[in-house]
Amino acid sequence: MILKNMRLIGADMNFASDNAGPAAPEIMDAVVRANHGYQSSYGADGVMQSVRNRIRERFEAPDAEIHLVATGTAANALCLACLCPPWGTVYCHRNSHVEEDECGAPEFYTGGAKLTLLEGAHARIDPAGLDAALRDAAPVGVHNVQKGALTLTNATENGAVYDTGQLRQLTELAAAHEIPVHVDGARFANAVAYLGCSPAELSWKAGVKALSLGGTKNGLLGVEAVVLFDPRHSWEFELRRKRGGHLFSKHRFLSAQMDAYLEGDLWLKLAGHANATARYLGEQISSCENTAILHPVEANMVFAEWPRRLHQAAYERGAGYYLWPHAQQLEGDPDKLLSARLVCNWSTTESEVDRFIEILRRN
Amino acid sequence: MILKNMRLIGADMNFASDNAGPAAPEIMDAVVRANHGYQSSYGADGVMQSVRNRIRERFEAPDAEIHLVATGTAANALCLACLCPPWGTVYCHRNSHVEEDECGAPEFYTGGAKLTLLEGAHARIDPAGLDAALRDAAPVGVHNVQKGALTLTNATENGAVYDTGQLRQLTELAAAHEIPVHVDGARFANAVAYLGCSPAELSWKAGVKALSLGGTKNGLLGVEAVVLFDPRHSWEFELRRKRGGHLFSKHRFLSAQMDAYLEGDLWLKLAGHANATARYLGEQISSCENTAILHPVEANMVFAEWPRRLHQAAYERGAGYYLWPHAQQLEGDPDKLLSARLVCNWSTTESEVDRFIEILRRN
Amino acid sequence: MILKNMRLIGADMNFASDNAGPAAPEIMDAVVRANHGYQSSYGADGVMQSVRNRIRERFEAPDAEIHLVATGTAANALCLACLCPPWGTVYCHRNSHVEEDECGAPEFYTGGAKLTLLEGAHARIDPAGLDAALRDAAPVGVHNVQKGALTLTNATENGAVYDTGQLRQLTELAAAHEIPVHVDGARFANAVAYLGCSPAELSWKAGVKALSLGGTKNGLLGVEAVVLFDPRHSWEFELRRKRGGHLFSKHRFLSAQMDAYLEGDLWLKLAGHANATARYLGEQISSCENTAILHPVEANMVFAEWPRRLHQAAYERGAGYYLWPHAQQLEGDPDKLLSARLVCNWSTTESEVDRFIEILRRN
Amino acid sequence: MILKNMRLIGADMNFASDNAGPAAPEIMDAVVRANHGYQSSYGADGVMQSVRNRIRERFEAPDAEIHLVATGTAANALCLACLCPPWGTVYCHRNSHVEEDECGAPEFYTGGAKLTLLEGAHARIDPAGLDAALRDAAPVGVHNVQKGALTLTNATENGAVYDTGQLRQLTELAAAHEIPVHVDGARFANAVAYLGCSPAELSWKAGVKALSLGGTKNGLLGVEAVVLFDPRHSWEFELRRKRGGHLFSKHRFLSAQMDAYLEGDLWLKLAGHANATARYLGEQISSCENTAILHPVEANMVFAEWPRRLHQAAYERGAGYYLWPHAQQLEGDPDKLLSARLVCNWSTTESEVDRFIEILRRN
Repeated sequence: MILKNMRLIGADMNFASDNAGPAAPEIMDAVVRANHGYQSSYGADGVMQSVRNRIRERFEAPDAEIHLVATGTAANALCLACLCPPWGTVYCHRNSHVEEDECGAPEFYTGGAKLTLLEGAHARIDPAGLDAALRDAAPVGVHNVQKGALTLTNATENGAVYDTGQLRQLTELAAAHEIPVHVDGARFANAVAYLGCSPAELSWKAGVKALSLGGTKNGLLGVEAVVLFDPRHSWEFELRRKRGGHLFSKHRFLSAQMDAYLEGDLWLKLAGHANATARYLGEQISSCENTAILHPVEANMVFAEWPRRLHQAAYERGAGYYLWPHAQQLEGDPDKLLSARLVCNWSTTESEVDRFIEILRRN
Repeated sequence: MILKNMRLIGADMNFASDNAGPAAPEIMDAVVRANHGYQSSYGADGVMQSVRNRIRERFEAPDAEIHLVATGTAANALCLACLCPPWGTVYCHRNSHVEEDECGAPEFYTGGAKLTLLEGAHARIDPAGLDAALRDAAPVGVHNVQKGALTLTNATENGAVYDTGQLRQLTELAAAHEIPVHVDGARFANAVAYLGCSPAELSWKAGVKALSLGGTKNGLLGVEAVVLFDPRHSWEFELRRKRGGHLFSKHRFLSAQMDAYLEGDLWLKLAGHANATARYLGEQISSCENTAILHPVEANMVFAEWPRRLHQAAYERGAGYYLWPHAQQLEGDPDKLLSARLVCNWSTTESEVDRFIEILRRN
Repeated sequence: MILKNMRLIGADMNFASDNAGPAAPEIMDAVVRANHGYQSSYGADGVMQSVRNRIRERFEAPDAEIHLVATGTAANALCLACLCPPWGTVYCHRNSHVEEDECGAPEFYTGGAKLTLLEGAHARIDPAGLDAALRDAAPVGVHNVQKGALTLTNATENGAVYDTGQLRQLTELAAAHEIPVHVDGARFANAVAYLGCSPAELSWKAGVKALSLGGTKNGLLGVEAVVLFDPRHSWEFELRRKRGGHLFSKHRFLSAQMDAYLEGDLWLKLAGHANATARYLGEQISSCENTAILHPVEANMVFAEWPRRLHQAAYERGAGYYLWPHAQQLEGDPDKLLSARLVCNWSTTESEVDRFIEILRRN
Repeated sequence: MILKNMRLIGADMNFASDNAGPAAPEIMDAVVRANHGYQSSYGADGVMQSVRNRIRERFEAPDAEIHLVATGTAANALCLACLCPPWGTVYCHRNSHVEEDECGAPEFYTGGAKLTLLEGAHARIDPAGLDAALRDAAPVGVHNVQKGALTLTNATENGAVYDTGQLRQLTELAAAHEIPVHVDGARFANAVAYLGCSPAELSWKAGVKALSLGGTKNGLLGVEAVVLFDPRHSWEFELRRKRGGHLFSKHRFLSAQMDAYLEGDLWLKLAGHANATARYLGEQISSCENTAILHPVEANMVFAEWPRRLHQAAYERGAGYYLWPHAQQLEGDPDKLLSARLVCNWSTTESEVDRFIEILRRN
């Protein structure tokens, strides 16, 4: 969505989205290297086996099945279709990507399941609300949709991270009601990097059955790995993927990206850098007058507010970011506080942050 | 699908599939160049406007709407979903990709439409059969599925090409029954290169409403352009694409491929080379003893048969291709004729063909 | 759903549901009369033409198209599928039948549309909430589901009635956002009978495009008429109905019921009686000690609360009705107020009410 | 579908369809009797338990689960949705009701499965053709739709009956490929009555997993029983039924019909009468000059041909039936043979047949 009131593409100071930035050089190199001779198509390429091995090892999950797709929406919707029947409901946060940014992909792929919207600060699902919703549905009859699956986003849409305790609180509620748990991990790397825990602790060891392991927002051209900790869904996933048009013939170009991403924990290095830069950005914003940080800066995003005239100045000087929520207007009372989302990615530099902060300070 | 009775990946002499080969260097260069700084995501990148302009100009279709997806199955299924209602039927050849190789993607994306299978030599739809099928459905009532759309593949799955006359015969029948026409153009470049006609003559000027313009089989990493000659379907297409998980955030990497593909008619050069190599391969096979060519070699594929012992020898020496149909066995009576499909791509060389033919001659 | 804590089937004092009661004798007579000789099937029976004429005349809508189905869920879901695309959202009340009691039928029939839940007292949609939701969706992009349709229930699930002014407030908001309006009229007869207005005033004259005109809850065996004030949806509706398995071969038995229902405004007489009995019941409950009426008694339902011991006494003496919401327990502190739903139908008598009230008074 | 070239509704001599005739008096009486006092809704009525018991006993299947719907299309499509995944294909006869007369209901309810069309005389599936189709699909990969289910119609659309041996031939093929078998038994009663076998022999004992046990074509107003011999599908069926809008609130009126239908084997008596009348009709037609019987007359339908002038005479004198196939024209060369379908139902009399035959003889 292109909004009139922003500049998305700056030579620098671009905090619009982690998917507006470039791919990491290690990734691009791997893609170029993969373009050599012949390779079996449709996922039978040799590199894909390496991807599987790396994920199984890194996640301490030797039985996990792994499949690649090119978009986060595909990863999420295909996972949910495997976990939730058409007559089920998917419990999710009101501000989750599956609800707000996928144009109904979960409904489409599941064959018409429902999404039950839950509240919670910082886009984390409030356990009490989940508990109430599940209890409310408890005496199931044929008249209502059935309890289907729980999906949560880690890191959240507001840049917060569920730690393993918070995660377990939710997965245990799901388990008590016998529904499986999916994690939208478009920024899973950022969550792991923030917590310093093992990927296993933040996934299957905490009761997660399926994970969309994001790459696109973290330096890939466009690949997400679906990690099925319950391998029984694997064949169904493959059929749904093919039927959804998401099986790549020249699959080697997906494998190559994911392989390089995992090699030497590049994924955590890239995410760690983005997190650190966001933290630095958040601290610097905090130190400016008339500003406030709106959500904990745990991953690679800063949600903050400051007076409108500073937004005007920042836009004028070429900074790129979204006013958040979008409905706010750039024109009007110069002292009114407007809120914004600023996203850092693997390539964002401290000096960009410094130049940006200077605008906030000098105006 | 990996079959036991073939070697797919040879250092050379690989005729398994046009999607087992590499991307063209011009394409890879463009991808690398695209990886610079920030770009608007989701198709709002600058290069996409160039793609639109190039296609509109090259197809003499200033009103056409163009959208990119990464797989042919997505392109086909999304087009058909825009053209055929859930209660309609799509007329197609029995051996078409939409029927045989998409795991029901058209049924999924249309919301449960039917495919009506037609016969015809060389995977070209027989006009008499289409006429009969449409007449048969003519006195439509509510009990039957309704006439929905016609889809045909050019070049066909058997490497034949519909010329403009043959194409018009079918589109006129469709027009008489008021159903729109889609072309699966996974090898459209090969068809245009073979005929030497203009892209417009082989599409909208001949009554085609929507075209899946293939790139992946012809030197791209994975991009297909959907060309909607009737722009009224454009917004619906965009929504279906997003909802299907086929809208790329880092869309610039798709745009870059398609832009380079169109620049200086690279697409036709690549396809022309593949066609010429296939023609040469076909001629050489014809000149061998005990061989027969099974379909006209018009695009980049040769369907031929020769004795089993020569297949065994070819496999042994590292040639890669599929026995076609797959059910044939590599072991058995050495003189039995087995049929095969051999596909050339932009990178296949005459010397590979020569080495391959030598095997057929010497054994 | 059969709950342990109620007696549904009493010889009398049964207020469980308007669909637990019998069919009206005029209706049953018509069904018996229809069982004579041969009739064209699938809606081509002669009586269906009479049904069409009666509805067009009574609704002052000569162009309306009318189709019959046997269940309210079918009527609602088929209407919504005609009005809302798969990528749209249906605005509805959080407690509406389409959300709570159809096991996802709207999602199924629309091909995966979403339901956006709105608040409002007495299960009437709050116009301010609708306005906000529509505005919130206003800057539509491809990432979100699109504004699809508005559906409201009249009389509501809480027995309240939208008058023509309240109705227009909502339909004007919908019109401003260019989305069509459907009315779930499972108890439309009760609403018209309550208001004393014309059916046209409460439907197309107030901006309604499609109406599920209920019969089953008001004395039929099982028939609902779908009234399409915009006849352009008619053929699509017919195809969706057939494809949904809702076109009856021996359709005459549906036609006969609806015809008798409309003849001499039987539908309004039956609903008027049920309304009057409910009003009487509500007044009588009000006059008892320790009771409260929870929603305006405008149609044929009373929502009220009184002490648990009186519920226990009522159940013991054979009264049938649901504690509402269902989660309440019949056992426990005898003075605690528990709420209940009591439904009157065309056959409920004042003497039943009197006997029931006596229980509340004497205990 | 109303065709110009037929008279559907005659005072007598109506052989148009078994669903154009009346309901049997025993059935109508049961409906009238059911209209007494209050009954639990949605299938919890007392009579439904009797229906379950009767079917379990009569089919010697104590574990079978039974559910009622009102149309054959609903029964078939809901069964197939439980048996075949969205990515599967349903093997069926080219002329089956699911393919030709349900406007894509199986595709809709399964979520986009495919139907694979098989040939076979008299609308019986040819075992060799099924075998070939299943073998052809055997080396399943992700590219093709998967083997889903087999459905066959008994008695067939051409009035032929599969005996238990013929049935087993097909079900054993299905079992060898591990796909379940559904029987469209819209005229199952006619098949059982013809063979004189037990219902169990013609269903679960022969490997059938799910049966649509028809009532509507055999004297009911509109009820079909779904008999799930594998009860594991039962809850899924109930959810799909509700979600499809096929769960009746005043379910007692469905139960009552099915209960009376089963009582004292009325179903077999009604079907036996229809079969006998058809046999008599067939014999009489055979004995006329210039006629031919086109399919074995085993159930309640006669397919035959005779000169056009006799069709003209029959229509003129008020006989009602379809020319079959429909495309034939009533006007033209008087001696040309035209084929017709004549259907007898429980109420067709020998004297009607005699009057009809007299027309064929006297003209």
